[in-house]
Amino acid sequence: MASLPPSLAALIAALNRLPGIGPRSAERLALHLVLSERGNSDQLVLAIQAARDQVRLCECCGGLAETPRCDLCDDPRRDPEIVCVVERPVDVLLVERAGVFRGRFHVLGGKLSPLSGVEPEDLRIRELENRLTPERVREVILALPTDVEGDATSHYLAQRLKPRGVRVTRLAHGLPAGTGLEYADELTLGRALEGRAPLA
Amino acid sequence: MASLPPSLAALIAALNRLPGIGPRSAERLALHLVLSERGNSDQLVLAIQAARDQVRLCECCGGLAETPRCDLCDDPRRDPEIVCVVERPVDVLLVERAGVFRGRFHVLGGKLSPLSGVEPEDLRIRELENRLTPERVREVILALPTDVEGDATSHYLAQRLKPRGVRVTRLAHGLPAGTGLEYADELTLGRALEGRAPLA
Repeated sequence: MASLPPSLAALIAALNRLPGIGPRSAERLALHLVLSERGNSDQLVLAIQAARDQVRLCECCGGLAETPRCDLCDDPRRDPEIVCVVERPVDVLLVERAGVFRGRFHVLGGKLSPLSGVEPEDLRIRELENRLTPERVREVILALPTDVEGDATSHYLAQRLKPRGVRVTRLAHGLPAGTGLEYADELTLGRALEGRAPLA
Repeated sequence: MASLPPSLAALIAALNRLPGIGPRSAERLALHLVLSERGNSDQLVLAIQAARDQVRLCECCGGLAETPRCDLCDDPRRDPEIVCVVERPVDVLLVERAGVFRGRFHVLGGKLSPLSGVEPEDLRIRELENRLTPERVREVILALPTDVEGDATSHYLAQRLKPRGVRVTRLAHGLPAGTGLEYADELTLGRALEGRAPLA
Protein backbone atom coordinates (compact mmCIF):
# COMPACT_ATOMS: atom_id res chain seq x y z
CA MET A 1 0.00 0.00 0.00
CA ALA A 2 1.36 3.38 -0.98
CA SER A 3 0.48 4.96 2.35
CA LEU A 4 2.43 2.55 4.55
CA PRO A 5 5.92 3.86 5.48
CA PRO A 6 8.56 1.35 4.24
CA SER A 7 10.11 0.76 7.68
CA LEU A 8 6.67 0.00 9.10
CA ALA A 9 5.92 -2.38 6.23
CA ALA A 10 9.23 -4.15 6.90
CA LEU A 11 8.39 -4.51 10.60
CA ILE A 12 4.96 -5.93 9.77
CA ALA A 13 6.60 -8.44 7.42
CA ALA A 14 9.12 -9.49 10.09
CA LEU A 15 6.38 -9.97 12.69
CA ASN A 16 4.25 -11.88 10.18
CA ARG A 17 7.05 -14.46 9.85
CA LEU A 18 6.75 -15.38 13.55
CA PRO A 19 4.77 -18.55 14.34
CA GLY A 20 1.06 -17.92 14.90
CA ILE A 21 1.19 -14.23 13.91
CA GLY A 22 -1.05 -13.49 10.92
CA PRO A 23 -1.05 -10.32 8.78
CA ARG A 24 -3.62 -8.51 10.95
CA SER A 25 -1.89 -9.36 14.22
CA ALA A 26 1.44 -8.31 12.71
CA GLU A 27 -0.04 -4.95 11.73
CA ARG A 28 -1.54 -4.38 15.18
CA LEU A 29 1.71 -5.33 16.91
CA ALA A 30 3.80 -3.14 14.59
CA LEU A 31 1.61 -0.09 15.21
CA HIS A 32 1.77 -0.71 18.94
CA LEU A 33 5.57 -0.97 18.85
CA VAL A 34 5.89 2.21 16.78
CA LEU A 35 3.20 4.39 18.36
CA SER A 36 3.21 3.42 22.04
CA GLU A 37 5.77 4.73 24.51
CA ARG A 38 9.34 4.35 23.35
CA GLY A 39 10.17 2.32 26.48
CA ASN A 40 7.92 -0.55 25.39
CA SER A 41 9.77 -1.32 22.18
CA ASP A 42 13.19 -0.69 23.76
CA GLN A 43 12.34 -3.16 26.49
CA LEU A 44 11.26 -5.81 24.00
CA VAL A 45 14.41 -5.36 21.91
CA LEU A 46 16.63 -5.69 24.98
CA ALA A 47 14.70 -8.77 26.15
CA ILE A 48 15.10 -10.47 22.75
CA GLN A 49 18.81 -9.72 22.64
CA ALA A 50 19.41 -10.82 26.24
CA ALA A 51 17.53 -14.10 25.84
CA ARG A 52 19.20 -14.76 22.51
CA ASP A 53 22.66 -14.15 24.02
CA GLN A 54 22.14 -16.00 27.27
CA VAL A 55 19.89 -18.99 26.61
CA ARG A 56 21.75 -22.11 25.53
CA LEU A 57 21.09 -25.84 25.68
CA CYS A 58 22.24 -27.71 28.80
CA GLU A 59 25.20 -29.90 27.90
CA CYS A 60 23.84 -32.74 30.02
CA CYS A 61 20.10 -32.96 29.28
CA GLY A 62 19.78 -30.67 26.22
CA GLY A 63 17.15 -28.50 27.95
CA LEU A 64 17.06 -24.72 28.18
CA ALA A 65 19.72 -23.15 30.38
CA GLU A 66 21.83 -20.04 30.90
CA THR A 67 24.74 -21.99 32.35
CA PRO A 68 26.61 -25.01 30.89
CA ARG A 69 24.38 -27.28 32.99
CA CYS A 70 20.73 -26.41 33.69
CA ASP A 71 19.20 -25.94 37.13
CA LEU A 72 17.39 -29.27 36.94
CA CYS A 73 20.54 -31.28 36.18
CA ASP A 74 22.36 -29.50 39.01
CA ASP A 75 19.55 -29.86 41.55
CA PRO A 76 20.64 -32.49 44.12
CA ARG A 77 17.01 -32.96 45.21
CA ARG A 78 16.07 -34.37 41.79
CA ASP A 79 16.32 -38.16 41.55
CA PRO A 80 19.03 -38.95 38.97
CA GLU A 81 17.92 -42.57 38.70
CA ILE A 82 14.73 -41.73 36.80
CA VAL A 83 15.13 -39.94 33.46
CA CYS A 84 12.20 -38.54 31.47
CA VAL A 85 12.95 -38.44 27.72
CA VAL A 86 11.22 -35.67 25.73
CA GLU A 87 11.40 -34.46 22.14
CA ARG A 88 11.98 -30.70 22.51
CA PRO A 89 13.43 -28.36 25.16
CA VAL A 90 9.97 -26.83 25.70
CA ASP A 91 8.57 -30.26 26.61
CA VAL A 92 10.65 -30.12 29.79
CA LEU A 93 8.60 -27.09 30.89
CA LEU A 94 5.34 -28.85 30.07
CA VAL A 95 6.23 -31.92 32.17
CA GLU A 96 7.50 -29.68 35.00
CA ARG A 97 4.18 -27.85 35.03
CA ALA A 98 2.38 -31.11 35.79
CA GLY A 99 4.29 -30.98 39.08
CA VAL A 100 4.47 -34.73 39.69
CA PHE A 101 7.89 -35.66 38.26
CA ARG A 102 10.93 -35.38 40.53
CA GLY A 103 13.58 -37.03 38.35
CA ARG A 104 15.87 -35.69 35.61
CA PHE A 105 15.22 -34.97 31.94
CA HIS A 106 16.80 -35.81 28.61
CA VAL A 107 15.91 -33.90 25.44
CA LEU A 108 16.22 -35.95 22.24
CA GLY A 109 16.06 -32.92 19.94
CA GLY A 110 13.59 -34.53 17.52
CA LYS A 111 11.94 -37.81 16.59
CA LEU A 112 12.95 -40.51 14.15
CA SER A 113 11.67 -39.74 10.67
CA PRO A 114 13.36 -41.74 7.89
CA LEU A 115 11.34 -39.85 5.26
CA SER A 116 12.72 -36.50 6.47
CA GLY A 117 16.19 -37.98 6.90
CA VAL A 118 16.17 -37.99 10.71
CA GLU A 119 18.11 -41.12 11.72
CA PRO A 120 19.01 -42.34 15.26
CA GLU A 121 22.44 -40.68 15.06
CA ASP A 122 20.75 -37.28 14.52
CA LEU A 123 19.08 -37.49 17.93
CA ARG A 124 20.74 -37.25 21.35
CA ILE A 125 20.45 -41.01 21.94
CA ARG A 126 24.17 -41.66 22.44
CA GLU A 127 24.21 -38.87 25.05
CA LEU A 128 21.32 -40.62 26.82
CA GLU A 129 23.15 -43.95 26.83
CA ASN A 130 26.24 -42.26 28.21
CA ARG A 131 24.22 -41.04 31.21
CA LEU A 132 22.87 -44.48 32.17
CA THR A 133 25.89 -45.87 34.02
CA PRO A 134 27.36 -42.76 35.76
CA GLU A 135 23.93 -41.61 36.94
CA ARG A 136 22.85 -45.20 37.86
CA VAL A 137 19.62 -44.75 35.91
CA ARG A 138 17.00 -47.32 36.89
CA GLU A 139 14.09 -46.13 34.76
CA VAL A 140 13.70 -44.22 31.50
CA ILE A 141 10.23 -42.70 31.04
CA LEU A 142 9.50 -41.98 27.36
CA ALA A 143 7.34 -38.83 27.11
CA LEU A 144 7.38 -38.50 23.32
CA PRO A 145 4.50 -37.39 21.07
CA THR A 146 1.86 -40.04 20.39
CA ASP A 147 1.95 -39.57 16.61
CA VAL A 148 3.42 -42.18 14.25
CA GLU A 149 6.95 -40.81 14.40
CA GLY A 150 6.84 -40.36 18.15
CA ASP A 151 5.61 -43.92 18.66
CA ALA A 152 8.29 -45.28 16.30
CA THR A 153 10.95 -43.36 18.25
CA SER A 154 9.62 -44.74 21.55
CA HIS A 155 9.75 -48.30 20.27
CA TYR A 156 13.23 -47.85 18.84
CA LEU A 157 14.49 -46.44 22.16
CA ALA A 158 12.85 -49.26 24.14
CA GLN A 159 14.60 -51.89 21.98
CA ARG A 160 17.92 -50.11 22.26
CA LEU A 161 17.82 -49.39 25.99
CA LYS A 162 16.42 -52.70 27.30
CA PRO A 163 19.69 -54.67 26.90
CA ARG A 164 21.26 -52.07 29.21
CA GLY A 165 19.20 -53.44 32.10
CA VAL A 166 17.14 -50.29 32.53
CA ARG A 167 13.36 -50.20 32.95
CA VAL A 168 11.73 -48.41 29.99
CA THR A 169 8.19 -47.01 30.38
CA ARG A 170 6.06 -44.58 28.42
CA LEU A 171 3.39 -42.09 29.51
CA ALA A 172 -0.13 -43.49 29.84
CA HIS A 173 -2.43 -42.99 26.86
CA GLY A 174 -6.06 -42.31 27.67
CA LEU A 175 -8.73 -39.75 28.37
CA PRO A 176 -7.68 -36.15 29.02
CA ALA A 177 -8.54 -34.97 32.52
CA GLY A 178 -11.79 -33.10 33.05
CA THR A 179 -13.57 -34.03 29.79
CA GLY A 180 -16.26 -36.45 28.72
CA LEU A 181 -15.92 -39.42 26.36
CA GLU A 182 -17.26 -37.29 23.51
CA TYR A 183 -14.05 -35.25 23.45
CA ALA A 184 -11.79 -38.28 22.90
CA ASP A 185 -11.23 -39.54 19.34
CA GLU A 186 -11.61 -43.27 18.55
CA LEU A 187 -7.89 -44.00 18.78
CA THR A 188 -7.59 -42.34 22.19
CA LEU A 189 -10.68 -44.13 23.45
CA GLY A 190 -9.31 -47.45 22.16
CA ARG A 191 -6.03 -46.89 23.98
CA ALA A 192 -7.87 -45.84 27.13
CA LEU A 193 -9.72 -49.17 27.04
CA GLU A 194 -6.56 -51.18 26.47
CA GLY A 195 -4.81 -49.35 29.30
CA ARG A 196 -7.71 -49.60 31.76
CA ALA A 197 -6.65 -49.70 35.41
CA PRO A 198 -8.24 -51.36 38.48
CA LEU A 199 -10.26 -49.02 40.71
CA ALA A 200 -9.28 -49.66 44.34
CA MET B 1 8.94 -21.99 37.20
CA ALA B 2 12.36 -22.92 38.46
CA SER B 3 13.38 -24.50 35.18
CA LEU B 4 12.85 -21.42 33.00
CA PRO B 5 16.05 -19.43 32.40
CA PRO B 6 15.57 -15.84 33.73
CA SER B 7 16.32 -14.12 30.42
CA LEU B 8 13.75 -16.34 28.69
CA ALA B 9 11.18 -15.61 31.40
CA ALA B 10 11.85 -11.88 30.92
CA LEU B 11 11.36 -12.19 27.15
CA ILE B 12 8.08 -14.07 27.65
CA ALA B 13 6.90 -11.33 30.03
CA ALA B 14 7.82 -8.60 27.53
CA LEU B 15 5.98 -10.39 24.70
CA ASN B 16 2.98 -10.99 26.95
CA ARG B 17 2.62 -7.22 27.39
CA LEU B 18 2.00 -6.77 23.65
CA PRO B 19 -1.64 -6.35 22.59
CA GLY B 20 -3.34 -9.65 21.73
CA ILE B 21 -0.44 -11.83 22.90
CA GLY B 22 -1.45 -14.16 25.73
CA PRO B 23 0.88 -16.19 27.98
CA ARG B 24 0.92 -19.23 25.67
CA SER B 25 1.59 -17.21 22.52
CA ALA B 26 4.31 -15.28 24.34
CA GLU B 27 5.98 -18.55 25.32
CA ARG B 28 5.80 -19.94 21.79
CA LEU B 29 7.18 -16.71 20.29
CA ALA B 30 9.97 -16.49 22.87
CA LEU B 31 11.10 -20.06 22.21
CA HIS B 32 11.01 -19.41 18.48
CA LEU B 33 13.10 -16.25 18.85
CA VAL B 34 15.63 -18.01 21.07
CA LEU B 35 15.87 -21.42 19.39
CA SER B 36 15.40 -20.68 15.67
CA GLU B 37 18.19 -19.38 13.47
CA ARG B 38 19.95 -16.35 14.89
CA GLY B 39 19.08 -14.34 11.76
CA ASN B 40 15.36 -14.40 12.56
CA SER B 41 15.63 -12.59 15.87
CA ASP B 42 18.31 -10.20 14.59
CA GLN B 43 16.06 -9.25 11.69
CA LEU B 44 13.13 -8.59 13.98
CA VAL B 45 15.22 -6.46 16.33
CA LEU B 46 16.53 -4.38 13.43
CA ALA B 47 13.04 -3.97 11.99
CA ILE B 48 11.65 -2.77 15.36
CA GLN B 49 14.49 -0.28 15.79
CA ALA B 50 14.27 1.02 12.21
CA ALA B 51 10.50 1.51 12.34
CA ARG B 52 10.73 3.09 15.77
CA ASP B 53 13.41 5.53 14.57
CA GLN B 54 11.89 6.37 11.22
CA VAL B 55 8.13 6.40 11.59
CA ARG B 56 6.68 9.73 12.72
CA LEU B 57 3.34 11.47 12.38
CA CYS B 58 2.81 13.67 9.31
CA GLU B 59 2.79 17.31 10.40
CA CYS B 60 -0.10 18.05 8.07
CA CYS B 61 -2.60 15.19 8.47
CA GLY B 62 -1.22 13.40 11.54
CA GLY B 63 -0.99 10.08 9.67
CA LEU B 64 1.99 7.71 9.57
CA ALA B 65 5.03 8.98 7.66
CA GLU B 66 8.80 8.76 7.44
CA THR B 67 9.14 12.33 6.19
CA PRO B 68 7.77 15.58 7.71
CA ARG B 69 4.78 15.31 5.37
CA CYS B 70 3.33 11.94 4.38
CA ASP B 71 3.05 10.59 0.82
CA LEU B 72 -0.71 11.20 0.75
CA CYS B 73 -0.44 14.87 1.71
CA ASP B 74 2.29 15.38 -0.88
CA ASP B 75 0.51 13.50 -3.68
CA PRO B 76 -0.68 16.12 -6.22
CA ARG B 77 -3.16 13.60 -7.65
CA ARG B 78 -5.13 13.52 -4.39
CA ASP B 79 -7.99 16.02 -4.24
CA PRO B 80 -7.20 18.53 -1.43
CA GLU B 81 -10.77 19.83 -1.42
CA ILE B 82 -12.18 16.69 0.21
CA VAL B 83 -10.79 15.73 3.64
CA CYS B 84 -11.63 12.46 5.38
CA VAL B 85 -11.40 12.79 9.19
CA VAL B 86 -10.42 9.63 11.10
CA GLU B 87 -9.64 8.85 14.73
CA ARG B 88 -6.27 7.04 14.56
CA PRO B 89 -3.33 6.91 12.16
CA VAL B 90 -4.15 3.27 11.35
CA ASP B 91 -7.64 4.28 10.20
CA VAL B 92 -6.02 6.01 7.21
CA LEU B 93 -4.78 2.60 6.05
CA LEU B 94 -8.21 1.05 6.50
CA VAL B 95 -9.92 3.72 4.39
CA GLU B 96 -7.16 3.52 1.76
CA ARG B 97 -7.70 -0.22 1.50
CA ALA B 98 -11.31 0.38 0.44
CA GLY B 99 -9.75 2.01 -2.65
CA VAL B 100 -12.58 4.46 -3.38
CA PHE B 101 -11.38 7.65 -1.67
CA ARG B 102 -9.13 10.02 -3.63
CA GLY B 103 -9.02 13.01 -1.28
CA ARG B 104 -6.82 13.85 1.70
CA PHE B 105 -6.92 12.69 5.33
CA HIS B 106 -6.90 14.29 8.75
CA VAL B 107 -6.20 12.25 11.89
CA LEU B 108 -7.90 13.58 15.05
CA GLY B 109 -5.78 11.49 17.41
CA GLY B 110 -8.74 10.40 19.54
CA LYS B 111 -12.41 11.04 20.20
CA LEU B 112 -14.15 13.34 22.64
CA SER B 113 -14.60 11.68 26.02
CA PRO B 114 -15.38 14.09 28.88
CA LEU B 115 -15.31 11.21 31.38
CA SER B 116 -11.73 10.33 30.37
CA GLY B 117 -10.77 13.99 30.22
CA VAL B 118 -10.49 14.19 26.42
CA GLU B 119 -11.69 17.68 25.48
CA PRO B 120 -11.84 19.31 22.03
CA GLU B 121 -8.48 21.02 22.56
CA ASP B 122 -6.85 17.59 23.09
CA LEU B 123 -7.74 16.56 19.52
CA ARG B 124 -6.26 17.90 16.30
CA ILE B 125 -9.35 19.99 15.54
CA ARG B 126 -7.58 23.36 15.39
CA GLU B 127 -5.14 21.84 12.88
CA LEU B 128 -8.12 20.70 10.79
CA GLU B 129 -9.65 24.17 10.83
CA ASN B 130 -6.33 25.66 9.80
CA ARG B 131 -6.34 23.50 6.67
CA LEU B 132 -9.80 24.56 5.47
CA THR B 133 -8.92 27.89 3.86
CA PRO B 134 -5.43 27.27 2.38
CA GLU B 135 -6.50 23.90 0.93
CA ARG B 136 -9.91 25.27 -0.20
CA VAL B 137 -11.68 22.35 1.46
CA ARG B 138 -15.23 21.89 0.16
CA GLU B 139 -16.22 18.74 2.02
CA VAL B 140 -15.21 17.11 5.31
CA ILE B 141 -16.13 13.41 5.51
CA LEU B 142 -16.31 12.20 9.11
CA ALA B 143 -15.14 8.58 9.27
CA LEU B 144 -15.17 8.17 13.06
CA PRO B 145 -16.22 5.12 15.08
CA THR B 146 -19.97 4.61 15.44
CA ASP B 147 -19.85 4.19 19.22
CA VAL B 148 -21.21 6.81 21.62
CA GLU B 149 -17.99 8.79 21.84
CA GLY B 150 -17.39 8.64 18.09
CA ASP B 151 -20.91 9.85 17.36
CA ALA B 152 -20.56 12.67 19.90
CA THR B 153 -17.28 13.71 18.27
CA SER B 154 -18.91 13.66 14.83
CA HIS B 155 -21.76 15.88 15.99
CA TYR B 156 -19.40 18.27 17.74
CA LEU B 157 -17.27 18.59 14.61
CA ALA B 158 -20.32 19.11 12.40
CA GLN B 159 -21.52 21.98 14.61
CA ARG B 160 -18.08 23.54 14.73
CA LEU B 161 -17.27 23.24 11.02
CA LYS B 162 -20.61 24.20 9.44
CA PRO B 163 -20.26 27.97 10.10
CA ARG B 164 -17.05 27.75 8.03
CA GLY B 165 -19.14 27.11 4.91
CA VAL B 166 -17.85 23.58 4.41
CA ARG B 167 -20.04 20.55 3.64
CA VAL B 168 -19.86 18.01 6.49
CA THR B 169 -20.83 14.39 5.80
CA ARG B 170 -20.36 11.11 7.64
CA LEU B 171 -19.91 7.54 6.40
CA ALA B 172 -23.13 5.64 5.69
CA HIS B 173 -24.36 3.33 8.46
CA GLY B 174 -25.98 0.10 7.30
CA LEU B 175 -25.50 -3.54 6.47
CA PRO B 176 -21.96 -4.86 6.06
CA ALA B 177 -21.23 -6.06 2.52
CA GLY B 178 -21.66 -9.76 1.77
CA THR B 179 -23.77 -10.77 4.77
CA GLY B 180 -27.42 -11.48 5.52
CA LEU B 181 -29.75 -9.54 7.78
CA GLU B 182 -29.12 -12.05 10.58
CA TYR B 183 -25.57 -10.75 11.00
CA ALA B 184 -26.63 -7.15 11.67
CA ASP B 185 -27.60 -6.13 15.22
CA GLU B 186 -30.86 -4.20 15.82
CA LEU B 187 -29.17 -0.80 15.93
CA THR B 188 -27.39 -1.38 12.63
CA LEU B 189 -30.56 -2.68 11.01
CA GLY B 190 -32.47 0.36 12.29
CA ARG B 191 -29.89 2.70 10.82
CA ALA B 192 -29.90 0.77 7.55
CA LEU B 193 -33.69 1.32 7.34
CA GLU B 194 -33.40 5.04 8.12
CA GLY B 195 -30.65 5.43 5.54
CA ARG B 196 -32.38 3.39 2.80
CA ALA B 197 -31.51 4.49 -0.73
CA PRO B 198 -33.51 4.40 -3.98
CA LEU B 199 -32.68 1.50 -6.29
CA ALA B 200 -32.24 2.82 -9.85
